[in-house]
Amino acid sequence: MEDNNDHLVRSTDCEHPANLIPELCRKFWNLGASNCEYYRELPLTISSDLVYLAPSGVQKELMQPENIYVLEMSKQVDPKKRIYLRSPPNLKPSQCTPLFMAAYQKRNAGCCIHTHSQWAVLITLLLERRSENKKVFEINNIEQIKAFGRGWKKEGSMGYHDTLRIPVIENTPFEEDLTVYLESAMDAFPDTYAVLVRRHGLYVWGDTVSKAKQHAESLDYLFRLAVEMEKLQLPWLSDIAPIV
Amino acid sequence: MEDNNDHLVRSTDCEHPANLIPELCRKFWNLGASNCEYYRELPLTISSDLVYLAPSGVQKELMQPENIYVLEMSKQVDPKKRIYLRSPPNLKPSQCTPLFMAAYQKRNAGCCIHTHSQWAVLITLLLERRSENKKVFEINNIEQIKAFGRGWKKEGSMGYHDTLRIPVIENTPFEEDLTVYLESAMDAFPDTYAVLVRRHGLYVWGDTVSKAKQHAESLDYLFRLAVEMEKLQLPWLSDIAPIV
Amino acid sequence: MEDNNDHLVRSTDCEHPANLIPELCRKFWNLGASNCEYYRELPLTISSDLVYLAPSGVQKELMQPENIYVLEMSKQVDPKKRIYLRSPPNLKPSQCTPLFMAAYQKRNAGCCIHTHSQWAVLITLLLERRSENKKVFEINNIEQIKAFGRGWKKEGSMGYHDTLRIPVIENTPFEEDLTVYLESAMDAFPDTYAVLVRRHGLYVWGDTVSKAKQHAESLDYLFRLAVEMEKLQLPWLSDIAPIV
Amino acid sequence: MEDNNDHLVRSTDCEHPANLIPELCRKFWNLGASNCEYYRELPLTISSDLVYLAPSGVQKELMQPENIYVLEMSKQVDPKKRIYLRSPPNLKPSQCTPLFMAAYQKRNAGCCIHTHSQWAVLITLLLERRSENKKVFEINNIEQIKAFGRGWKKEGSMGYHDTLRIPVIENTPFEEDLTVYLESAMDAFPDTYAVLVRRHGLYVWGDTVSKAKQHAESLDYLFRLAVEMEKLQLPWLSDIAPIV
Repeated sequence: MEDNNDHLVRSTDCEHPANLIPELCRKFWNLGASNCEYYRELPLTISSDLVYLAPSGVQKELMQPENIYVLEMSKQVDPKKRIYLRSPPNLKPSQCTPLFMAAYQKRNAGCCIHTHSQWAVLITLLLERRSENKKVFEINNIEQIKAFGRGWKKEGSMGYHDTLRIPVIENTPFEEDLTVYLESAMDAFPDTYAVLVRRHGLYVWGDTVSKAKQHAESLDYLFRLAVEMEKLQLPWLSDIAPIV
Repeated sequence: MEDNNDHLVRSTDCEHPANLIPELCRKFWNLGASNCEYYRELPLTISSDLVYLAPSGVQKELMQPENIYVLEMSKQVDPKKRIYLRSPPNLKPSQCTPLFMAAYQKRNAGCCIHTHSQWAVLITLLLERRSENKKVFEINNIEQIKAFGRGWKKEGSMGYHDTLRIPVIENTPFEEDLTVYLESAMDAFPDTYAVLVRRHGLYVWGDTVSKAKQHAESLDYLFRLAVEMEKLQLPWLSDIAPIV
Repeated sequence: MEDNNDHLVRSTDCEHPANLIPELCRKFWNLGASNCEYYRELPLTISSDLVYLAPSGVQKELMQPENIYVLEMSKQVDPKKRIYLRSPPNLKPSQCTPLFMAAYQKRNAGCCIHTHSQWAVLITLLLERRSENKKVFEINNIEQIKAFGRGWKKEGSMGYHDTLRIPVIENTPFEEDLTVYLESAMDAFPDTYAVLVRRHGLYVWGDTVSKAKQHAESLDYLFRLAVEMEKLQLPWLSDIAPIV
Repeated sequence: MEDNNDHLVRSTDCEHPANLIPELCRKFWNLGASNCEYYRELPLTISSDLVYLAPSGVQKELMQPENIYVLEMSKQVDPKKRIYLRSPPNLKPSQCTPLFMAAYQKRNAGCCIHTHSQWAVLITLLLERRSENKKVFEINNIEQIKAFGRGWKKEGSMGYHDTLRIPVIENTPFEEDLTVYLESAMDAFPDTYAVLVRRHGLYVWGDTVSKAKQHAESLDYLFRLAVEMEKLQLPWLSDIAPIV
């Protein structure tokens, strides 16, 4: 550790996670997300045991490869005492780390993204004031639903007429306390690729970086659409008969 | 085919379709379209028989010339078995291909664009809940209408007082099944340059790339304006007497 | 004219109008304006008689210096037969030309901008359905009003408590027919720097390029704010007593 | 002063205030702020006595290092007669200068930002029409609140369940007249990092440039969210019981 393993975050390959994380943070920052952090397993040819993590407290659109943490999954013993293979100077690990680890360990996710999207927050507020079904966002009969896979270890994509269900968990004062609720939601909705956090935002993942990004963009699209539908008194769930 | 005809997608001319398609995808992605694919005939001096097609499953804002399919119109026999002159490795042809071919063959379109614009989807939802006239979007007396030609094989542009009519077809679980409905809508509205797909998005085309782009941008402008008009209880159709 | 005077649109000075016009068009296109064209007198040290005009039918965000028209004010005899010192090949002069000339001749404007801003169009629609005062947009007690000068040949800026008044004229099928109505509105509102066109957009000008740009940006800000105020049932005019 | 101390605004260090101010102005201009100016103390190793100020009347997204004013705090005697160590040619100091100085002197702020954000203006208008509590914006139980420190000379950050309070002062015709009201609001709300100005915008600061930027972005996020909540009849204050 004498040299802090800085070679782990130095690469001229733009697909390397240390280069990809800052690029994705910039992209989501430009799209209006106030916050986004994620990790990713390396390609199997290098090592699937390495996890790359964005730090806390860095201006997301200015993040650099040298700001990134790296740890080995197999070397972690105590979640309260993470051992890092490589740490950036003068920064702290993100509070989201345990949540990303849950997606990694329970779903074998290759990448996990967290945002404070205003549309996600508004969806959780609209659900909160309902008299029932406050804990799940549901929408069907929208083409963009096809951007989601049928679920963990399942083949194929969701269909246009299918109902996409994203569970909602309540927020906690300390982000790491969300972990048990996130894990419960994953157990209750085994096929979901995302969990909404009330009055907070979204955790979303995928088998690969591009899948996680596609899920994050598609959910932001659907949440924004659903907020506009609410303003126009259009229901999120409908009964549309297939025409073929 | 041994070399996969990669020379067809390599050009230093920024007006070459293999360079133009990625640039347009980036531009529409920045404008908030979650999806956009299109094809274009080459300038006649090269060959009007070549069609360039964006692939499925590529992050649209990162598309590269080498991701693009090329086929010869005159060599296609069976729509279920397309023969490609040039194929990108590790990708699949877009499900939109048969719809683009319809615009090409029935209207001699030089370029066709597909988007999942939220404004387009909201327009189809607002029409759906009406008691009548659910299958056509109509707006008149708006200057931007002048961005559209009077129709296929007709001279000149639409006027400020004219009514722009865009037909709406119902969505199907598989995108290629839309083709017959798209063709019927083209027959019923021979002068339209676009077809809305309920709860899905828009297909829009033009004689040239710049015309198709102008139609796509102008429709997005009009759809967004119409959604705002609905929120403010302003009607899409009005009776405005010409002042000159 | 043998060489088409192309030297008039070639300069390495980024403040040269032939370079400034494309840059401004790109900037306004990025801000969501679907259309923007303008002209500008050259610095007096070159010649205040030259007018630079964007062409019609070019993709605004892709405009190049070589697409620009140049004419001499003093050489124009018949508005129906403009004589151009320099013309771009394969393009047509903008239909807006006579309107820009009106701002130039009646107000000595150094730059004029035209947009189809959706917020401007919505303002004219909201005024249209009123029972009275349909022909002027009025707002007061908003800090941004201070971005406007007190008017033609007057010193100083408008104050926070002042009422900004922008006249509205009705649209005509042919843009050049707007000229007489634009001139009448200028006569009726001698201090205005802008005229709204119902269901169409905005003409806005200033003594210099930066003043015209400031007016255009500030009006777009105020129009958007006013539309949001309408949605929230907040009145555009208020009676606020000065506190100092 | 013979050479105008231009070396004070020339640096190849992108963290130097003369380079940072233009970059931040561009960034906030792109985010839709029509106006933003700020100052910043230099790192202590240079001198904490120097203040950098953006000028008035420059197009914010085009600002250059050479447009920036520099003054020494310790050399200022009369607020009406500022002495500048370095002045840009042909420009005027911003009217905001006395307000920035208040944040600097009363709160030891390292950076202060001013915007005319439409969401900030709408919040002040929504508060104005209330029958009571017109002079403070309050929101609680939103994760983004954690972006704010607990207050001046206090350790730690606000919590998710805490109520963020931003005082509102009335606007004055001349910006410098706001100073006494700003100072009173700081006294009444000693822990606030921002003050809203009715029908005008926001003053926001932080101990460092990155803290001020984080506060400005987070407030814009919360103001926009709160306006959307109002449109959807969702209350800004709620009673949410902690779950852990």
